[in-house]
Amino acid sequence: MTFAISFDDVQSAARQIAGVANRTPVVTSRTFNRRVGSEVFFKCENLQRIGAFKFRGAYNALSRLSPDQKARGVVTHSSGNHAQGVALAAHLLGIAATIVMPTDAPQSKLAATRGYGAEIVLYNRQTQSREELSARLARERNLTFVHPYDQPQIMAGQGTAALELLQDVPDLDVLIAPVGGGGLLSGCTIAAKAINPNIRIFGVETDVSNDWWLSLRAGERVKIEPPDTIADGIRTQQPGELTFPIIQRHVEEILLVSDEQVLDTLKFILTRMKLVVEPTGAVAPAAVYHGLAPVSGAKIGVIISGGNVDPSLLARVLAG
Amino acid sequence: MTFAISFDDVQSAARQIAGVANRTPVVTSRTFNRRVGSEVFFKCENLQRIGAFKFRGAYNALSRLSPDQKARGVVTHSSGNHAQGVALAAHLLGIAATIVMPTDAPQSKLAATRGYGAEIVLYNRQTQSREELSARLARERNLTFVHPYDQPQIMAGQGTAALELLQDVPDLDVLIAPVGGGGLLSGCTIAAKAINPNIRIFGVETDVSNDWWLSLRAGERVKIEPPDTIADGIRTQQPGELTFPIIQRHVEEILLVSDEQVLDTLKFILTRMKLVVEPTGAVAPAAVYHGLAPVSGAKIGVIISGGNVDPSLLARVLAG
Repeated sequence: MTFAISFDDVQSAARQIAGVANRTPVVTSRTFNRRVGSEVFFKCENLQRIGAFKFRGAYNALSRLSPDQKARGVVTHSSGNHAQGVALAAHLLGIAATIVMPTDAPQSKLAATRGYGAEIVLYNRQTQSREELSARLARERNLTFVHPYDQPQIMAGQGTAALELLQDVPDLDVLIAPVGGGGLLSGCTIAAKAINPNIRIFGVETDVSNDWWLSLRAGERVKIEPPDTIADGIRTQQPGELTFPIIQRHVEEILLVSDEQVLDTLKFILTRMKLVVEPTGAVAPAAVYHGLAPVSGAKIGVIISGGNVDPSLLARVLAG
Repeated sequence: MTFAISFDDVQSAARQIAGVANRTPVVTSRTFNRRVGSEVFFKCENLQRIGAFKFRGAYNALSRLSPDQKARGVVTHSSGNHAQGVALAAHLLGIAATIVMPTDAPQSKLAATRGYGAEIVLYNRQTQSREELSARLARERNLTFVHPYDQPQIMAGQGTAALELLQDVPDLDVLIAPVGGGGLLSGCTIAAKAINPNIRIFGVETDVSNDWWLSLRAGERVKIEPPDTIADGIRTQQPGELTFPIIQRHVEEILLVSDEQVLDTLKFILTRMKLVVEPTGAVAPAAVYHGLAPVSGAKIGVIISGGNVDPSLLARVLAG
């Protein structure tokens, strides 16, 4: 079967973003390792530009637009980090960006997106379709739509996170990443399986945001109601068309963590590992921290997807 | 003039701690760079074992004790991170450790030190001499005293932080580190000047904790009253005997930052760079962040010394 992207696309994305995106560090914690009985390598995309992996795909996609497309501008929708990724990439490339964001997006993400000079159009996540709103804006304003995950250049860009991780730690047995729309997980899967066909790959979502878990069981893309989870980066309702086949084919299992387990893990990472992560960034670590990944004793690569967390939430976690 | 340590000692320490201490990552922030007009490379000792650089020196010193000394145990005094460094190194090496700590040390540091199995003896920073108390314990219990900074193996161990930083970023023009007793700054100075004799080195302390600033001006080791600064890692009252000549000879200037500037910088590092740092860890970055280092345009290496901050202080900073 042919997928939307190949390893060549990920390698090409790596060249495209080199020197613009950060090559993020891989950190380890002996305390974490001791607790889980494995050797864990955290790829710190919270230390990526805009504080999340999303910049990789956004820059890869926007930098490849034609001069005409660049002149007309782009539109996208996002719960937050993709918005910032597109806003910064657009800013660096001199492209006008319009971003459709939910009214309940974290203030820090709204402010940062505005800070990069993008125009924000707000929508109500419970009553409006962000897809329709974005499509209408694209038509009316003659903008190029940049999908938050279901677009080959986006997927290939996100895959560079796993490419770098496996360059730094070649002998990983397992790779674990959060899954929302599937851009990160599909891109990372293509990269990781190309480098090591035997690597075991797991996606993680929160238990109320279980569209992937349901979809893999059903064998088709199941759509759920807008999920109410603390992990605002994975509040998607349905797997992507392009991302689904890759994950269906290569990902061993979707693991489910609770919001409580996410916050618990976030607190450990903050206080013991000294890293600021957002709830979605703690989703993949939470699956390992709480022993939900059937991979004891293995060398595990875990993607910390981002660090853009509202200070008030951090303060609440610290008080708890 | 002969100093207490040479570059050979630092290189030997690097071999001694290899595989036991973390090789900590060097991170950059384009936002920070843009603000200060320089290219800054942060050596993240907050991501070191025990959350601070102190493990380097402690492990270097304790691992070189004789079998007899190891069997008898060690004693030291510390405001916190050296305590944890000695406690963990002792734990790893099967050595009993007794640690003299101030009653007002952060709860997180007291708890962590106890957690490594060390015995803590508390003293009142305003009325008791920790040096006398440690010396008495050493005599009475036949323990080997491990100085928090004024001991060659400690200084050489701390110098490995700069050695690694310059291995990763060889063309630094400037190196900036916080200075309390001078163990970190003296060790890093020996390493950095050996690698690049032209590198400019600055130490940073808070304005109320200005014993080094006064001492360099006086040309001798000035003793101050116990300073009341938020940076609990540099509350020393007087430069070390062994550390002073190295810093006097090679360090260009001691820069002074206010507690407010430290907290301001800590907040930037936390919310924008996604790193948890303790106040002392933000002391060197604060000098650059607030434009106090006369090094505009240079490539600057900055040591983030540690990340062991009480959650209540973090919460306060986030609310402010």
